[in-house]
Amino acid sequence: MHLFSVKGFSGAGVAAGIKQSKKNDVGLLVADGFATAAAAFTTNKVFAAPIAVGRKHIRDGVLKGVVINSGNANACTGQQGIEDAERMCGLAAQLTQTDYRLFLPSSTGIIGHLLPMNNVCAGIRAAAAELGNSQEHSDSFIASILTTDTRPKFASATVRIGGKRVTLTGTCKGAGMIGPKMAVKQATMLAYLLTDADIDAPLLRKVLGASVETSFNCVTIDNHMSTNDTAVLLASGASGAVVRRADAEKFKGALDDITQSLAQQIAADGEGATKVVTVRVRAAASAADAQKMARAIADSPLVKCAMHGNDPNWGRIVSAAGMCGAKFSPEKAKLTLQGTVVYRNGQPIKFDAAAVSKRLGEKEVVADLHCGAGTGEATVWTCDFSREYVTINADYHT
Amino acid sequence: MHLFSVKGFSGAGVAAGIKQSKKNDVGLLVADGFATAAAAFTTNKVFAAPIAVGRKHIRDGVLKGVVINSGNANACTGQQGIEDAERMCGLAAQLTQTDYRLFLPSSTGIIGHLLPMNNVCAGIRAAAAELGNSQEHSDSFIASILTTDTRPKFASATVRIGGKRVTLTGTCKGAGMIGPKMAVKQATMLAYLLTDADIDAPLLRKVLGASVETSFNCVTIDNHMSTNDTAVLLASGASGAVVRRADAEKFKGALDDITQSLAQQIAADGEGATKVVTVRVRAAASAADAQKMARAIADSPLVKCAMHGNDPNWGRIVSAAGMCGAKFSPEKAKLTLQGTVVYRNGQPIKFDAAAVSKRLGEKEVVADLHCGAGTGEATVWTCDFSREYVTINADYHT
Repeated sequence: MHLFSVKGFSGAGVAAGIKQSKKNDVGLLVADGFATAAAAFTTNKVFAAPIAVGRKHIRDGVLKGVVINSGNANACTGQQGIEDAERMCGLAAQLTQTDYRLFLPSSTGIIGHLLPMNNVCAGIRAAAAELGNSQEHSDSFIASILTTDTRPKFASATVRIGGKRVTLTGTCKGAGMIGPKMAVKQATMLAYLLTDADIDAPLLRKVLGASVETSFNCVTIDNHMSTNDTAVLLASGASGAVVRRADAEKFKGALDDITQSLAQQIAADGEGATKVVTVRVRAAASAADAQKMARAIADSPLVKCAMHGNDPNWGRIVSAAGMCGAKFSPEKAKLTLQGTVVYRNGQPIKFDAAAVSKRLGEKEVVADLHCGAGTGEATVWTCDFSREYVTINADYHT
Repeated sequence: MHLFSVKGFSGAGVAAGIKQSKKNDVGLLVADGFATAAAAFTTNKVFAAPIAVGRKHIRDGVLKGVVINSGNANACTGQQGIEDAERMCGLAAQLTQTDYRLFLPSSTGIIGHLLPMNNVCAGIRAAAAELGNSQEHSDSFIASILTTDTRPKFASATVRIGGKRVTLTGTCKGAGMIGPKMAVKQATMLAYLLTDADIDAPLLRKVLGASVETSFNCVTIDNHMSTNDTAVLLASGASGAVVRRADAEKFKGALDDITQSLAQQIAADGEGATKVVTVRVRAAASAADAQKMARAIADSPLVKCAMHGNDPNWGRIVSAAGMCGAKFSPEKAKLTLQGTVVYRNGQPIKFDAAAVSKRLGEKEVVADLHCGAGTGEATVWTCDFSREYVTINADYHT
């Protein structure tokens, strides 16, 4: 299974010289016909030009495709930036014989530099000439959206609706500046999700919005919301399976499988990360309180450094839960690290610190905080904080 | 000038073997008579035993002194922790012939371990036997409150009130787990502030509360609020200068000089820090918005790593301002780094990046964001994020 195993789409990625590394940096994804589409964008008040353009182009819920460059975010680039983003759409539309408003543009990379439009346009032309739906096309497209990512990200799911098989696939990028809070109406996390389901735009928008909330909006690497975050879902209808309101939960279940897998892949590939850390908060006074505590724990540099050092430093985790404004009674709480209870009822308990430390050295770490206060739950994915993270971000020069 | 240059107080610090380093770890500070007192404590819902005890003991606004240990936070230690904190007060009171409710206890260090009470009590006895008001006594006391701090912190001020000279001195500790939000009614930042002014408890409380808001509550190293943060201000009255409501602003001005100096000393001595970064936000829609933006910038690991790398990466700063929920219009904003405008009106401007980078290599860095939206202002002090920070916090084992 690859990205274009979903019927009705083709794509390609090429190297157009925007990245100094000469890796792929322009991608094009095109529907055979017209796709029903929904998108979620960053809620940062400093949003990039492609976000401003994309918000307009998604309005009618129909897209021919998406046109993407990496290596430059086209953010904080003023009116010229807007014109450049529109020109990307215009060229992609011209090459696929459609209207420029049927393309959604995305950019990711450095902030505050005008796009090198000669390279971008040459890249779009080259990608358009190479469109296809093979594994190789999927690989080249996925490579074109990456920046500091160390590996491609992909997930797929199938579900039967109305007796017919619906396929969903998705890819995303993101390793730094990851603290998305996307909203459908209005992530540099980029996610491209495809399905061959036949679904109307309002329902697609609703399902995507709900799925983003419990996936991409629950991953944090540095709690820094990007100017360019975008998640877009395109539905070709090629399966002939009509998703009605009654089928929405089933369809969303399959979509959640993909978005949550991709969110975890982002956390695992966080800048400098050596492990993915799942922070689960249960039995909080409310879901909002659970979310606040899980975020406070996942975003604490002290917690993330302890995770890096395989240190069962539960004091940092419990104090993070207490500092975020959520209702929290330490004397009712229980903290489990890698399956071992390390804190209970407001006091230190005996546990085998060496054994827990060893298990914290695994690639996947789970911190589970049971609050004993209600039924609120939340899960947030993050990674550890390493010297390598500092190296990547102190030496990445503007 | 040293801590006990304020008339009416004496103190001492000793090494009692709580810290493995064998440095000073128990301190005692005692008023000759009885001091009018006010204190601000952490608002973390996970608060240490000395906080619970201190909140009770400060209620009447009178203290004989404070009794402190470093090397162990007495946090998450249950009922035994409370009893231990009360016992610290009891012993200090017995040795100074007063009531245990007239001592305020403080602890700082590792979370989740019971205090080694034999060491603590031996330390209190030794400190009580050594009380004095010389430079050496000041030095030994200040040393006793430090943990990962690399240097002692001290500030002083004088002000004339009612024709008489009032002296204020203060010391504090804190290098990690610094993101205080203290409230008077209710940091592991510890601050001990002394004055010889004659001032009543309600006014002292009001002045301390206001001063903490624009000093200690505006310093962040890792945005992790401690379980033990405490700032206490003791007034001996020995100067004979009576501070009335009409003099409060003048007195607060002198107190602000000390608290803001100490807050900046904390930022400069942050774990692994190579520089202090002052984030100033001006012309925001409101003071609250300015505070939100300054905190978001100061707490962003991406901004802190850029500061470490002397990188004038203004995109990270501007995008942090946009992500925090404050009103912010990038097209009206102007960002100045070390005196050079690097961003204006939503678009990139030309500036000498090499020259700004060089100036970012200085020990004191100022980022000034002018929002063009109103009159709200805020200043937050932080530090850069280094590989050394990760080393300190990944290798500090529980």
